Amino acid sequence: MASWRDPEIAGVRALLAARAPDPSSPPSYAERRAAMDAVGEAGALPRGCFHEPLALSGVKGERVVPQGAVEGRRLLYLHGGGYTIGSPRSHRPMVARLAEAARAVAIVPDYRLGPETRFPGAVEDATAVYRALLDAGTEPAGLAVAGDSAGGGLAMALALSLKAAGLPQPAGYLAISPWADLTQSGASYRTKADVDPVITKAGLDQMALAYLGGLDPHDPLASPIFGDFEGVAPVMIQTGSEEALLSDSVTLADVLAQARVEVRLEVWPEMIHVFQAYGAVLNAARRAIRTSGAWLDERLS
Amino acid sequence: MASWRDPEIAGVRALLAARAPDPSSPPSYAERRAAMDAVGEAGALPRGCFHEPLALSGVKGERVVPQGAVEGRRLLYLHGGGYTIGSPRSHRPMVARLAEAARAVAIVPDYRLGPETRFPGAVEDATAVYRALLDAGTEPAGLAVAGDSAGGGLAMALALSLKAAGLPQPAGYLAISPWADLTQSGASYRTKADVDPVITKAGLDQMALAYLGGLDPHDPLASPIFGDFEGVAPVMIQTGSEEALLSDSVTLADVLAQARVEVRLEVWPEMIHVFQAYGAVLNAARRAIRTSGAWLDERLS
Repeated sequence: MASWRDPEIAGVRALLAARAPDPSSPPSYAERRAAMDAVGEAGALPRGCFHEPLALSGVKGERVVPQGAVEGRRLLYLHGGGYTIGSPRSHRPMVARLAEAARAVAIVPDYRLGPETRFPGAVEDATAVYRALLDAGTEPAGLAVAGDSAGGGLAMALALSLKAAGLPQPAGYLAISPWADLTQSGASYRTKADVDPVITKAGLDQMALAYLGGLDPHDPLASPIFGDFEGVAPVMIQTGSEEALLSDSVTLADVLAQARVEVRLEVWPEMIHVFQAYGAVLNAARRAIRTSGAWLDERLS
Repeated sequence: MASWRDPEIAGVRALLAARAPDPSSPPSYAERRAAMDAVGEAGALPRGCFHEPLALSGVKGERVVPQGAVEGRRLLYLHGGGYTIGSPRSHRPMVARLAEAARAVAIVPDYRLGPETRFPGAVEDATAVYRALLDAGTEPAGLAVAGDSAGGGLAMALALSLKAAGLPQPAGYLAISPWADLTQSGASYRTKADVDPVITKAGLDQMALAYLGGLDPHDPLASPIFGDFEGVAPVMIQTGSEEALLSDSVTLADVLAQARVEVRLEVWPEMIHVFQAYGAVLNAARRAIRTSGAWLDERLS
């Protein structure tokens, strides 16, 4: 195993190791959701940022309003958690920081999760919320889509769903450590197995099963790397070099590039899955959010 | 074949088609070198930019001095041309624009070419010039390396050569449409064969043979995608979506990321091999040079 030049990421790893659940009695989905929400709710928001509940097209969620948002600008944020855990609560501090950097009000749907709701429920909810934002008068040029992990994959599935439905594309997509291949075929499951402190292939196999039931993981709305992205809006991908999901990011960049989509792929050395979530203790997380927020800000009208 | 949303790239394609040599009497290396130099020498330089000959460690070349260069900053630029053609003259306008954007004096070696000089002559010359810059007092933190096509591959070979020699890494590397795999294994040779107006697999096979003679193309100093980059400086890669060499860029990004190198890969939709060279007629070329120049500027002291 490598030694880390960034002392802060070593600290994050120590924290994660201390928090790891007892493998002899794995927590239920309900317990994992509650624990994840508690972490998010304990995190500080940027000064002057507030949040409030909302519902769009029957999908509940929340609105996160940073200081300095440009009038009418919206960031549709799709949280991660393997399509089975996570919520607007769990991701609130990171979403708030990103919304502030992108100078946009974030809309964070509490999309339906597996195993209670199977594929393509999450894609349907994301599409319904996007459509509701347009119906409410949001201009596509003033709307961006972002997501992390499963939410990054879901953002790319939404791109395909919008294309299929003939809906206008947003200004851009940000995919943070996307889970874009539910067949778990990436080489990095092997090459990064010893250094990824968060993701295991076994864990994702289980979550894919809970989300898909017996459905085909090769469906592009489940595994966007199998999709045809010709004509979708520009995509920025941010990932850590120590991720079992690193190959998902690289393969997604390849698939997008082959389809003539504008792509920026950033690989952050020594960083781990969704390292942007550790902004309270990790300078690289804050820098990454400034960088991706600036990318969104440039593309949004 | 696609139709192009960017009318300027359609113009560049028309220009290239009109310039294409008669396949029944292919030009010699001497003729191709002369024609390439003539194009570069006809191009305008940014206002106030001048160039002058230089020699470093026995390698001739030129210095390109833009307005506004930061004191002591150097950009070592390795021109493209399949290791067999190209020169500081052929690439001068593009190098001058990039040097201006990076606020650095460019050093452009006239490294030895195949078939007259075989591998690893080019790598030896690049390494000798880098070493001479350090010996002359250039700080590694104030030195960046850039190159296009074969020069982008050579920049990555230089990274490996510096690592092997224990020399300090520069502030960063910029690889523009790099030719990083002299075995020509990339999928994009197939997927982009009909849309790439510049590069063919047959053409690169011939140039690889002229450069390598009978030597093994799997040598990482010839094909950097086979190298171990752990510990090298950050790398930015810019490529066009319509390139037969697209896969070289994506594979290089993958290899670097696996080795925990900081990577930014940018894919520019509709753009072709080394589109940055068409700055006189292509807005995307000027924007790409501003973007990559800014990336270098941020990393250089």
